[in-house]
Amino acid sequence: MLAFAYLLYTHNKYTTMESKIIFALDVYDYNTAMELARTVGEKVFAIKINWPVILENGIKIVRDLSKYANIICDFKLADIDNTVSMITTKVKEYGGYGIISHSFTGLNSLKAVVKSAGNMKVFSVVSMSQESYLDNITEELIKISREAGVYGLVAPGNRPYYLKKVKELSEGLKIISPGVGAQGGDIVNAMLLGSDYVIIGRSIYNSLDPLGTLEGFSSSINNKLNK
Amino acid sequence: MLAFAYLLYTHNKYTTMESKIIFALDVYDYNTAMELARTVGEKVFAIKINWPVILENGIKIVRDLSKYANIICDFKLADIDNTVSMITTKVKEYGGYGIISHSFTGLNSLKAVVKSAGNMKVFSVVSMSQESYLDNITEELIKISREAGVYGLVAPGNRPYYLKKVKELSEGLKIISPGVGAQGGDIVNAMLLGSDYVIIGRSIYNSLDPLGTLEGFSSSINNKLNK
Repeated sequence: MLAFAYLLYTHNKYTTMESKIIFALDVYDYNTAMELARTVGEKVFAIKINWPVILENGIKIVRDLSKYANIICDFKLADIDNTVSMITTKVKEYGGYGIISHSFTGLNSLKAVVKSAGNMKVFSVVSMSQESYLDNITEELIKISREAGVYGLVAPGNRPYYLKKVKELSEGLKIISPGVGAQGGDIVNAMLLGSDYVIIGRSIYNSLDPLGTLEGFSSSINNKLNK
Repeated sequence: MLAFAYLLYTHNKYTTMESKIIFALDVYDYNTAMELARTVGEKVFAIKINWPVILENGIKIVRDLSKYANIICDFKLADIDNTVSMITTKVKEYGGYGIISHSFTGLNSLKAVVKSAGNMKVFSVVSMSQESYLDNITEELIKISREAGVYGLVAPGNRPYYLKKVKELSEGLKIISPGVGAQGGDIVNAMLLGSDYVIIGRSIYNSLDPLGTLEGFSSSINNKLNK
């Protein structure tokens, strides 16, 4: 009976409608952002926004976008405790689902983010989708991320060596991965190596048919991971 | 005659009204920010803002604050080329005087900031006012900062060892220093060790008399550096 339930579970694992895609909505304009969110919001796990859309609209757009999807604020926090707390508190106040912080700033800053986040999910960057000075210290960054109590890690979908390393050390922390699509990484490969969710931006928002493009990515994941 | 002119110059060096202080305006609220800028703007070298005030007001506040002072956007950029370019371009469009970027993300990201900045001054963080993973790579970060063509470096006013090290390797790049005031560093000591401008925030904006407090800091610098 247990074996049967397990089979059902594994069979459904990648065939349910739960999306493995986080849509990176890296645009400036309010109407463009809202229209894209309305179009693809229900079909993605979350929408990730970055500073560009905040520059034009302020943090209130997080509340507006939240009507259509979970919003993860990819603010790559990299400052002293006082400042990262101020930013995180504001994201929480406006209904953010999650926030992304760097971890190289050290344990105290990351703890300040986690504390201010309350129920929001905190994801910490331990490796980037481009070469950077984090490459030599990824292991330490994962260690302090766990100690700070983050929910998940950010690791690159286009750099298999680093993604695999992060997966091996993640001990159950969720892994979200940029670098697929326009930055060259293969989505399915990233998921096989350990990404729980892949982040896709330009390939969708620069498409003439964002929803169709998104559904193409989703089918590709479902088909290949079920083989 | 030349010697006399030189004497006049050196005598005036710290007694002119040119301020050595950058005011860190780390508040959320528009009216509070504008009122503080109006009060102290003329008496400081520049006003530095960070994400908190952008969250509530969007980037347009840079244009408004620029009426009173040079505005440096302390955005601690730490992302891929595409994203840092988008942010920097917007700051420039709204009349920013300068922008602060991290450098640990590597040469390409920093070059992207410098390129998008045009005439704006780019300052790169090579050491922080709190312990961080930058401490071991400060020398490399200064090297790539110079290669990327930044205008200045950010180095801590409250950590003399690292400030002195940055000064020794800076080769004429301007040094601006946080960590004085509320974070414990001594302003005059920071300037003697190599800071061109010190960044003071909480000590001023939490004061009942921001202008008086600022003038106190300025007098302290002038008196002690002229001894």
